[in-house]
Amino acid sequence: MIRKILIANRGEIAVRVVRACRDLHIQSVAIYTLPDKECLHVKVADEAHMLGTDPIKGYLDAKNIVKIALDCGADAIHPGYGFLSENYEFAKLVEDSGLIFIGPKSDVIRKMGDKNIARYLMKRNGVPIVPGTEKLNDETIEKIKEHAARIGYPVILKASGGGGGRGIRKVYHEDELEDAYNSCKREAKAYFNNDEVFMEKLVVNPRHIEFQILGDNYGNIIHLCERDCSIQRRHQKIIEIAPCPSISEALRKVMGVTAVAAAKAVGYSNVGTIEFLLDDDNHFYFMEMNTRIQVEHGVTEEITGVDLVVRQIRMAAGEILELKQSDIRPQGYAIEARITAENVRQNFIPAPGKITGYYPALGPSVRVDSHAYKDYEIPPFYDSLIAKLMVKATDYDLLVNKLERALKEFTIEGVQTIIPFLLAISKSREFRRGFFDTSYVEKNMDSILANTHDKFIENEADVKSAISEAITKHKKIYNC
Amino acid sequence: MIRKILIANRGEIAVRVVRACRDLHIQSVAIYTLPDKECLHVKVADEAHMLGTDPIKGYLDAKNIVKIALDCGADAIHPGYGFLSENYEFAKLVEDSGLIFIGPKSDVIRKMGDKNIARYLMKRNGVPIVPGTEKLNDETIEKIKEHAARIGYPVILKASGGGGGRGIRKVYHEDELEDAYNSCKREAKAYFNNDEVFMEKLVVNPRHIEFQILGDNYGNIIHLCERDCSIQRRHQKIIEIAPCPSISEALRKVMGVTAVAAAKAVGYSNVGTIEFLLDDDNHFYFMEMNTRIQVEHGVTEEITGVDLVVRQIRMAAGEILELKQSDIRPQGYAIEARITAENVRQNFIPAPGKITGYYPALGPSVRVDSHAYKDYEIPPFYDSLIAKLMVKATDYDLLVNKLERALKEFTIEGVQTIIPFLLAISKSREFRRGFFDTSYVEKNMDSILANTHDKFIENEADVKSAISEAITKHKKIYNC
Repeated sequence: MIRKILIANRGEIAVRVVRACRDLHIQSVAIYTLPDKECLHVKVADEAHMLGTDPIKGYLDAKNIVKIALDCGADAIHPGYGFLSENYEFAKLVEDSGLIFIGPKSDVIRKMGDKNIARYLMKRNGVPIVPGTEKLNDETIEKIKEHAARIGYPVILKASGGGGGRGIRKVYHEDELEDAYNSCKREAKAYFNNDEVFMEKLVVNPRHIEFQILGDNYGNIIHLCERDCSIQRRHQKIIEIAPCPSISEALRKVMGVTAVAAAKAVGYSNVGTIEFLLDDDNHFYFMEMNTRIQVEHGVTEEITGVDLVVRQIRMAAGEILELKQSDIRPQGYAIEARITAENVRQNFIPAPGKITGYYPALGPSVRVDSHAYKDYEIPPFYDSLIAKLMVKATDYDLLVNKLERALKEFTIEGVQTIIPFLLAISKSREFRRGFFDTSYVEKNMDSILANTHDKFIENEADVKSAISEAITKHKKIYNC
Repeated sequence: MIRKILIANRGEIAVRVVRACRDLHIQSVAIYTLPDKECLHVKVADEAHMLGTDPIKGYLDAKNIVKIALDCGADAIHPGYGFLSENYEFAKLVEDSGLIFIGPKSDVIRKMGDKNIARYLMKRNGVPIVPGTEKLNDETIEKIKEHAARIGYPVILKASGGGGGRGIRKVYHEDELEDAYNSCKREAKAYFNNDEVFMEKLVVNPRHIEFQILGDNYGNIIHLCERDCSIQRRHQKIIEIAPCPSISEALRKVMGVTAVAAAKAVGYSNVGTIEFLLDDDNHFYFMEMNTRIQVEHGVTEEITGVDLVVRQIRMAAGEILELKQSDIRPQGYAIEARITAENVRQNFIPAPGKITGYYPALGPSVRVDSHAYKDYEIPPFYDSLIAKLMVKATDYDLLVNKLERALKEFTIEGVQTIIPFLLAISKSREFRRGFFDTSYVEKNMDSILANTHDKFIENEADVKSAISEAITKHKKIYNC
């Protein structure tokens, strides 16, 4: 039984977990760094502990977080997404301290976090993977070129410890390979403190299809259908749809069975996501498993009726999963649009500032998960996500109309957001057809921007100086 | 094809219809009386027409409304609920003008609106009705006493044209019958301008179970499961749940089949509701059919995924209902709490005033339909409903916890609301058990009020003078 949960995160996901705690009559404990003290998660949790003046460090200080949890009498820690959520050493520390880690076992996180191990496990268990190599670091450049020739160009180089679109290089010709390999290694070292790099076949313009996994501590695992996350900008998802509007029922079934097999291969428990790439010829490839709740989990909740964060807590507390695969009968479609404070015309550079008016969309078919409120000053140190707008409908056409309606209703004043950009996407013909791949935004950027009716800051220098001003101001206020 | 809809209503249901219009890319036309000019439906519709200074009369002026619809080029009229929504003469006028009435045919409204005709139709078609009489007005008091003796006490006297808890008298002994009959007739005349009264067996402490009907213009009719509307105060629903938490699957099936038979008996089309009373021994009785969208339609939308207002419009436009009964597979539970501006300690007397802060509940599982906003001055002339809070969950226990969470989040400043009263209900043991009948609120009023933690105006005179001040103020402003 869990009575009190420390939430090792911030922003909207921390608010989301507080709500789930309330739904289960569980006490919630927030943590925050000083520049985050006005963030909503601090205000809504039952108690809150300050981690220091540095904006980020406190959220990554595993030992201190476990200590706070123990000191305040929490039974469990919810890691959210990002920060320490996929750090197996953190999960291990939590386990060893006698607390419940709300997620899979640390050893599972370790295995799925290492792309080489994950690929090996998948390969051994009949899950289709992208043709590729193990880590290349001990090999000569000649040997690496041989690998590429065998796999066939284009290939992609990836950091083993990477994520979020960083530490990857696409290589179309042998000539480019050596430079790409070296710069990829450097970036991997810089961002992830781990210069291991491996090579894969580049699946050209794939769709990004991921399956939501739900399992208990006793080996019962089901999937809760898939999400299409192909609408991305800068390799980051901005719109997600459940189920995928462009795959057949037969393919959905095959991919779902495969996703459950993949999760079983690693002895998975709690919620997680199997990410696949799907090419134009209906071949799908295991990409990775995210061993935590996803930003876009809400669309799955909307079509299945299952509260994933409530389930995470219950499964972690030892409850048996009573749902069978046949109990999962999704209704219609759901879509999420990530509303970020960014300048779309300056390559989506973050646009922090003070929210002077906040009017979330409301009414039928609409859900808003957010940590924003009127007079909240968005700090310049974190992810630019300020709200997740979700909409559901019986059919895809109606869904897109409803998204359009809700985006028009959603009003955020004082900061620049990507709402007008999302609205332009929702009106585009390709999007309305329901068939798009991960290259959609990049390919259509000009026409989307032409239909983006926003008030924007024209000058790049102005935008950058606004951000640097915001950082200086925050650092001054919080002495960090 | 419908391109433009005039919405012959106000407040939250008018806003709800505007949203459905947007979802279908249909133009919306609002109407309003002068004291309602700041109401949200006026602001969100694509155009708005003023009906005059009297707060109510304009909304009831059928001829003028049809004229406005024709003049502005609307194709159809949506009547909402209340006002002219169940007035068959209005529906007839709309039909005769060549416009589409978004609802059933006027003749169907006429039949179901007359309780004697409705009872007759139900009886002939195998639908169980409450033992009772036709209209009593031509009979002597001795004859009326004979009817009561045959039916068996307690009996209930009802106005044929009644509704909303008005024009009814419960009679437990023969001694009380004559007085009750006369006063019932007087009230019927005063409220409904029709003194026809009939008598029925009083079903003691029944549950109020109603089935949502959906039909097209071609005889295809299905139901979208039931709602339990037993939580009432002053004979008006305040909390509704779909599906009913206290009936068996077998009984649900029988009642559903009967509801569809009832709707077919009258040749029903569009959305409507068959209301049943269910007694302790699992006997159910046809009470009435509401030939329009219900206030509480949202909970049905939440469990079935079907947008009822969108369906209303599509069915009215001539679309064939493609859904079969077997396609309706509800997910979990949904609940609605009606948030009214009322003083719970003064017998729920309306508490109009200016909303100085408005923070609707948000996040997972939550929906809010409302016409309220910060700085909106609730006029003293209309229904006291200011928001409908809906919540959904996989199981009933979790549902009630989520309702509690959302009620705690929902903050309305400046006017007194029944949120603390609803919160007290959500915490009560009987409510949490899921078994309650229409007497629940009345029977438990003392304990509910004891757990209602609100700031209230103690003195009845103060409350009444506040209302009369509000009326005077509005009349002065709008010269009405």
